[in-house]
Amino acid sequence: MSEEPVGGDLSRLRQLNAVGVLRELRGDQPLTLTELSKRTGLSRASTEDVARDLLGRGWLAEVAPAPGSVGRPARRYRFNAGAGRLLGVDVGGHKVLALVTDLDGEVLHQVRVDVPAEAGRRARLAAVDRCVSKAIAGAGEIWATGVASTGLVDGTGKVMLSDSLPEWTGVDLAAHVRRLVPGPVRVENDCKLAALAENWRGVARYAKDVVFLLAGLRTGAGLIIDGKLHRGFANWSGEIGALPAVGWQTAPNHLHAWLTNHPTTDAFEGVFVAARAGDVSALAAVDGYVKDLAVGASALVLTLDPQLVVIGGGFSRSADVMVEPLRRELDRWCLRTPEIRVSAFADEGVALGAVRLALDEVEATITSGLRP
Amino acid sequence: MSEEPVGGDLSRLRQLNAVGVLRELRGDQPLTLTELSKRTGLSRASTEDVARDLLGRGWLAEVAPAPGSVGRPARRYRFNAGAGRLLGVDVGGHKVLALVTDLDGEVLHQVRVDVPAEAGRRARLAAVDRCVSKAIAGAGEIWATGVASTGLVDGTGKVMLSDSLPEWTGVDLAAHVRRLVPGPVRVENDCKLAALAENWRGVARYAKDVVFLLAGLRTGAGLIIDGKLHRGFANWSGEIGALPAVGWQTAPNHLHAWLTNHPTTDAFEGVFVAARAGDVSALAAVDGYVKDLAVGASALVLTLDPQLVVIGGGFSRSADVMVEPLRRELDRWCLRTPEIRVSAFADEGVALGAVRLALDEVEATITSGLRP
Repeated sequence: MSEEPVGGDLSRLRQLNAVGVLRELRGDQPLTLTELSKRTGLSRASTEDVARDLLGRGWLAEVAPAPGSVGRPARRYRFNAGAGRLLGVDVGGHKVLALVTDLDGEVLHQVRVDVPAEAGRRARLAAVDRCVSKAIAGAGEIWATGVASTGLVDGTGKVMLSDSLPEWTGVDLAAHVRRLVPGPVRVENDCKLAALAENWRGVARYAKDVVFLLAGLRTGAGLIIDGKLHRGFANWSGEIGALPAVGWQTAPNHLHAWLTNHPTTDAFEGVFVAARAGDVSALAAVDGYVKDLAVGASALVLTLDPQLVVIGGGFSRSADVMVEPLRRELDRWCLRTPEIRVSAFADEGVALGAVRLALDEVEATITSGLRP
Repeated sequence: MSEEPVGGDLSRLRQLNAVGVLRELRGDQPLTLTELSKRTGLSRASTEDVARDLLGRGWLAEVAPAPGSVGRPARRYRFNAGAGRLLGVDVGGHKVLALVTDLDGEVLHQVRVDVPAEAGRRARLAAVDRCVSKAIAGAGEIWATGVASTGLVDGTGKVMLSDSLPEWTGVDLAAHVRRLVPGPVRVENDCKLAALAENWRGVARYAKDVVFLLAGLRTGAGLIIDGKLHRGFANWSGEIGALPAVGWQTAPNHLHAWLTNHPTTDAFEGVFVAARAGDVSALAAVDGYVKDLAVGASALVLTLDPQLVVIGGGFSRSADVMVEPLRRELDRWCLRTPEIRVSAFADEGVALGAVRLALDEVEATITSGLRP
């Protein structure tokens, strides 16, 4: 890699050098110029040049010299995760949730706006507006935004198909959110983002092949294959629930039926609470639900042979009454039952995956040599 | 990359340089030393050194200088695909098929030995012995061997589970074949290898995400994801047929039933011939078969959203009566029906995939610096 800038404020080559330096500094350890120069292969002079520039932009911060240094102490640098902010927004059936994080994905604050499930397009987008304005007020400069939506999302950020949210098919969500925030906006399906979050900071860290199951009012899946989110040719992967034979369309009916017979309980949580307390009919309802869930889950497991199945979504809070029956059913259908883990994100996993999407955008922007 | 050999006959660094040179020469164009030096980033002297060594080993061949060269014509080199031989063996239900190819995978000759479907372990392995000895006699030096088997194969080349071949579970196929051939031997599941062959030299070249369907006496699947064969955590991917809900276990019954009612026809081919001729009951049998096949195929398509579905296996010869009904069924279940193509390999696809496995082995061996 040549180190000579060929002109302009921050030339292409200088940008590439900057990317190299930033990559080295994303680790936990601050580094001296000498260490940076050695790791990047850049000359000492170029390294200094790049570091000065990145310091000026706020992407690097200087750290106190290592204790015990002899002679003139060497300056050390670290990536300045506080230089900018990322926004992750989950547009769900019952809520809009926004997370503001630093460039390392550490959550600084969050805003939640409840939305009735039956809200139409206009009301839901108004809730998005309220949630986002509240989240970004005084949050610092938002460098990039990721948005999660139920349904199929195309490459431009438009919702191609949603059968769970009223009037949601056709919403150009990326265009809508772009009016609210500075910087790039990307939109992706919620199950895919929840899978991404588990692989990034959740229970599926370090796993290369993961089936993520969203178990809640809706059932969905997101796939990590070979360490990367698998999107598919037209971004329509993970939609096995559309196939009636795998049981996901009828799965929640077992819980619905129980609730109908127990009108004093109005939330699904109630079924799981009753099952946990040993209520025989509630246990049977959960069993019916898990049996249906397991057929589709087994289809995914048999197809991909993942290292790990992660259970997320609203029902994952009741995983204690679900995991063992699910394991039994997977044992029944699968040739090899993978490890099953329960998401630790409660209902923030999807929004955290949206943050990861925003971070991808920042990293791509740095790499492509454009100022975020 | 340093270019100085640090000692020994062919040092590690020299090997890395050799790999770089070989990589550049795997293309169609012969290259001069000047071109090689530019592409590999090695000095002229090191390039010459490596080229001399590779010529001595037979991995490179000299080509006549480019026509119209002025002055002293520059020597040009190409990869010598004829330096060694690869062996691919398909151990199937009714046959053992062996292909001998050059290092580019061009088939030089093939040997086929029929085996009765009911043959036990000993008889089938004896057929493997006959087929392999015949194939390698006078074939030149076999550098590596790939073997395809039905059933689940572990990383050591042992058959973990086969429900279609009698007494086949537990066979250590790699160890058996190692006694017959020089060089490394690798064993893999037949559907996976057929998928690999389509991605390498078949109708799925250049496609990154492919569902390969083996449609024949057995139904199976092999998956190419992001341009690579997807194996899964324990090499058990693609086994969706084990799930009764997706219909593959009953799919062939429709054809069996028709044959039972038409005792003069004794091969499955007969159903398709009658269907092609417009026989109403044969058309219904094919329709029933395709309907069952399509449920599992839809589960794979909905899961992965591939660019392409490839139909291979014995019934792919009758694809003309299968493809349209299959497309209709996929349209029925899938959110997006991918392109459907029919394998052009007849029943040699699996063995060709085994050749690719052998080639992987040779390339890995070169890369790891050991003489094949």
